Amino acid sequence: MPNSKPIKDYIRTIVDFPHEGIMFRDVTTLFADPRGFRMAIDQLLHPYAGMQIDKVVGLEARGFILGGAVAHQLSVGFVPIRKKGKLPGAVISEEYQLEYGEAIVEVHDDAITAGEKILVVDDLLATGGTAEAGIKLVERLGGEIIGCAFVIDLLELGGRAKLEAMGMDVHALCDFEGV
Amino acid sequence: MPNSKPIKDYIRTIVDFPHEGIMFRDVTTLFADPRGFRMAIDQLLHPYAGMQIDKVVGLEARGFILGGAVAHQLSVGFVPIRKKGKLPGAVISEEYQLEYGEAIVEVHDDAITAGEKILVVDDLLATGGTAEAGIKLVERLGGEIIGCAFVIDLLELGGRAKLEAMGMDVHALCDFEGV
Repeated sequence: MPNSKPIKDYIRTIVDFPHEGIMFRDVTTLFADPRGFRMAIDQLLHPYAGMQIDKVVGLEARGFILGGAVAHQLSVGFVPIRKKGKLPGAVISEEYQLEYGEAIVEVHDDAITAGEKILVVDDLLATGGTAEAGIKLVERLGGEIIGCAFVIDLLELGGRAKLEAMGMDVHALCDFEGV
Repeated sequence: MPNSKPIKDYIRTIVDFPHEGIMFRDVTTLFADPRGFRMAIDQLLHPYAGMQIDKVVGLEARGFILGGAVAHQLSVGFVPIRKKGKLPGAVISEEYQLEYGEAIVEVHDDAITAGEKILVVDDLLATGGTAEAGIKLVERLGGEIIGCAFVIDLLELGGRAKLEAMGMDVHALCDFEGV
């Protein structure tokens, strides 16, 4: 009999990772399941059916797994946004705040052409800090962001409100309460 | 007119990255091109047409981009092999040698079931150290590796010989001389 459980039920919760008090939502159990992964990629794309998308941007590292699949399904190119120092060519950078300290993400400065229509993909929307930095990078290169698609929205952390305040269309497949 | 340049021509070479003397083969220019990325994923899979593959294993981080797309094309699950400390659940680990020092890669200990047929995917085969560690992880979980597929084979670094000596079937889309 075909399995019909929803996306959310494929996601495993790991208590106290990466440190005490965090309920880590682990998408690797979703990705490892043939039906779960297929559904996740298909559902990430449903709102954009019939819309022009020129490139998919994925955020390191789990956004690479999703973004590669989404780009392939659309037959468009994929552009990685990476942590500082990982990309070999000329880059532009954005700094953002973490719980403790700052982090920097980068994109190749020739990876997006002005006017290209971009879909941004990542696994998890929490405070939205990484996504916000990624959006700024895409927009600095002249990319026009069609949407930001996530598997999980951690509702209470305010990421959706932050991105919507930037004018973004936010799409998530499921949400979790708590952090 | 459709573009017909080969995969290799989409790959950019960055001189002296990450350090002096290295000719870094940059696949991001291949991935960012709609035809290049499409061809790369399709060609990675050509040798395995008609064969049973239960899961795709991708090596962090560029192997995630390729592996996610390959798994989606096959409608199978994707399993990440990550650097130490990144996976939230219970893992098994393998240490391997880098040019300077060692590194450790990990996989969730429940990510592969004994007897599952596995395709291992990464962007670049150099000395084969990372791939060898990944193969050992898959085999320790009982996975049966159908093939190891790469975009680039750096011929002189001996990775292909190392993996073939382990009984692996190695597939690469193009090769480069030098390091």
